[in-house]
Amino acid sequence: MNRKHAFARLPLFPLTAEINGKHHLTIGGCDTVELAASFGTPLYVFDESTLHSKCLEYRREFGGRYPDTAIVYACKAFISPALAVLLQHEGLGLDVVSAGEIGIARSVGFPSEKVYFHGNNKARQELELALDWGIGRVVVDNFHELSLLARLADETKRTQDVLLRLSPGVDAHTHKYVATGVLDSKFGFPVSTGQAEEALAMAMAAPGLNVLGLHFHLGSPIFETEPYLTAIEIVLGFAAQMRDRLHFDLRELNVGGGFAIQYLTDSPPPPVEAYAEAIVSKVVEHCARLGLTSPRLVIEPGRGIVGRAGVALYTVGGTKEVPGIRKYVFVDGGMGDNIRPPLYGAVYEAVVANKADEAETEQVTIAGKFCESGDVLIKDIRLPNLQQGDILAVPACGAYCVPMSSNYNAFFRPAIAFVGDAKARLVRRRETHEDLIRCDLA
Amino acid sequence: MNRKHAFARLPLFPLTAEINGKHHLTIGGCDTVELAASFGTPLYVFDESTLHSKCLEYRREFGGRYPDTAIVYACKAFISPALAVLLQHEGLGLDVVSAGEIGIARSVGFPSEKVYFHGNNKARQELELALDWGIGRVVVDNFHELSLLARLADETKRTQDVLLRLSPGVDAHTHKYVATGVLDSKFGFPVSTGQAEEALAMAMAAPGLNVLGLHFHLGSPIFETEPYLTAIEIVLGFAAQMRDRLHFDLRELNVGGGFAIQYLTDSPPPPVEAYAEAIVSKVVEHCARLGLTSPRLVIEPGRGIVGRAGVALYTVGGTKEVPGIRKYVFVDGGMGDNIRPPLYGAVYEAVVANKADEAETEQVTIAGKFCESGDVLIKDIRLPNLQQGDILAVPACGAYCVPMSSNYNAFFRPAIAFVGDAKARLVRRRETHEDLIRCDLA
Repeated sequence: MNRKHAFARLPLFPLTAEINGKHHLTIGGCDTVELAASFGTPLYVFDESTLHSKCLEYRREFGGRYPDTAIVYACKAFISPALAVLLQHEGLGLDVVSAGEIGIARSVGFPSEKVYFHGNNKARQELELALDWGIGRVVVDNFHELSLLARLADETKRTQDVLLRLSPGVDAHTHKYVATGVLDSKFGFPVSTGQAEEALAMAMAAPGLNVLGLHFHLGSPIFETEPYLTAIEIVLGFAAQMRDRLHFDLRELNVGGGFAIQYLTDSPPPPVEAYAEAIVSKVVEHCARLGLTSPRLVIEPGRGIVGRAGVALYTVGGTKEVPGIRKYVFVDGGMGDNIRPPLYGAVYEAVVANKADEAETEQVTIAGKFCESGDVLIKDIRLPNLQQGDILAVPACGAYCVPMSSNYNAFFRPAIAFVGDAKARLVRRRETHEDLIRCDLA
Repeated sequence: MNRKHAFARLPLFPLTAEINGKHHLTIGGCDTVELAASFGTPLYVFDESTLHSKCLEYRREFGGRYPDTAIVYACKAFISPALAVLLQHEGLGLDVVSAGEIGIARSVGFPSEKVYFHGNNKARQELELALDWGIGRVVVDNFHELSLLARLADETKRTQDVLLRLSPGVDAHTHKYVATGVLDSKFGFPVSTGQAEEALAMAMAAPGLNVLGLHFHLGSPIFETEPYLTAIEIVLGFAAQMRDRLHFDLRELNVGGGFAIQYLTDSPPPPVEAYAEAIVSKVVEHCARLGLTSPRLVIEPGRGIVGRAGVALYTVGGTKEVPGIRKYVFVDGGMGDNIRPPLYGAVYEAVVANKADEAETEQVTIAGKFCESGDVLIKDIRLPNLQQGDILAVPACGAYCVPMSSNYNAFFRPAIAFVGDAKARLVRRRETHEDLIRCDLA
């Protein structure tokens, strides 16, 4: 019996993933087949142990090498009140990009000073809300925002700590939709055009703004460490120039996130250790070379914290075999809960949760139930023979699935359960008809 | 003053679009700048007059040529209770693909016998719901569903009218994500493999199923009439063979939808008249040739009904100029309310609603406020100089924007207003923080 693939795929799953005596996949000590039965499918399961471990790993790998490191979680990957509480306990900060994300942080009493406010088009009301709340940093993205924020701070007699987002002009070789560090980007002040210098001078001159440092973000996921190093050189070089020209004191260097996770068995990303070693070495060495006092280092992992912790569970429905071409197996979710395959060409593997160690005997294509041909979750994967009612578990679904989910085809968005110590708790219930039409007026 | 472009773009907008004395774009007699002020932005505005006219046009062009035509609206393009009421008044049927869409139809008392139930992976509970409700047709997509439905009908002693969805193996030259009529598709029984015949024999033998006819759907949008004609030949040819072999009586031919609308000034699609003339001629001629009694003709426009009626209104926020490369102008929506540009490479034009007849003096790229580089609504468009607070109106946004919208970045999904006779009514209010966390549990 060829069991190598099922076990080979376990490392894509949360750290606690195992196969139990019933041949079922377990996560956090919970039988995923029972989770599917209890909560229905599609179900997104997050393993609390993996969340804890990933927070710890980033703290250890970066903080161990560079004690003055702040780990700021990028909420865009996935946020909910339950997750915000967990991250607060872990001592992480939050990277938010909207009034909505601020609202979630506030709703659980998240300490405002640990929150960084990003975004290329922050609305006036959002900035007012952030200032009122005492947000830790506003990461200023462009001249429009700079003037607006300076005026708001001035009007309200506040001094707001800010970073400037720079566009270093580095291509991180990720999907063009998420390559944010290139020159032709909607994000940040380009260094090479002189606009970054101009912005810094303006910000330093604004009475209500306290420019603590600089930020860049190259995109996500980035499977190499090299782009970070190039960007760090550019941004530290800029900081040193600005020290000489403007007496700028770089107290905080925020290198963003984008740390990759493993989606496919044969495509491992660098371990967190490798990102940490490369980034910290470069910061230390380059600061020394340029005579810069070592700044606080800020990193903003999102996917890196939640990606592996999350597993999507689906129930198999019908199948369709096109002889000689392809066997389609249908699940009860798809592009409505995970748009990444059609949007980014994202690739996933899967395990049959109730036949977790059975031999993989056939090649199938896993399609969703949405009315589009593009609604294919996994093209061409070898799996055990699938039957109606089987539970398919897709790993590495913790990031950018739930937050981008829609009610396309009037499907209800999935439930979310957190698991740990052999217990499961529903942290988000499945939508209902009432939720679907809640905003519709007579 | 070069006014040609602003006026040239009006035909992309609803039929009632005009430019008023304040140089503002009006729709349905309502000043869009005032709509934006009243309801906030992003706002989706639907012109009731255009909805009426499009329903009428499809009825007239198809029904005028072929009286026994049923126009069945494809809810996936966009549905809400308000729209379902309007479509009911227009005498259209509904094409639904989920319990959620059935729920919306039921909630407004839509006549169940005019509803067609599509989808490649209908759940048992969905089929039970549909049968209980007395749904007009179940369009059976594969063998799994065929067995399930036959069993359910038998168990409940019902006779359910069904169509079989065929996969004719026709490439409609649309985006591969929405090309549904090709052989390698998750949808339908392939004709060429013999599976369609096998399915028809099974369905005809099932005591609880009454096979009224055949369905195909090639994808959307389809800018040519030729693919329909090829598919009609294949499917009618199949029907004639099955008459001879199985005594099958084709009483209903459902040719699906996919009728294109105009997104760009220089890319007009065939008028509805052209689709109607081509399809009806082919059906009449080919039925005559094959000696088939003329079946009822069913068409399923979705985009064709709502696409042009809908306009997205955004407020301009900041801008970012990368010298020599690109000027970005940011609006307060983007891929959260309209994922079509990054998902399908969809292209749009726009008009500045408050400067509707000003000269188009600069080339800009319209980006949204979502934290991704892929969040670009319109790349490279000539517009009047844009300033903060300007209202941007994007035409042809009635289909596949709102239904695919997400809460990515924890942004609230937009409000929707229906306009007509110089009156506007909010049919869906904007989401709030409470809506965002409504399903989250403590």
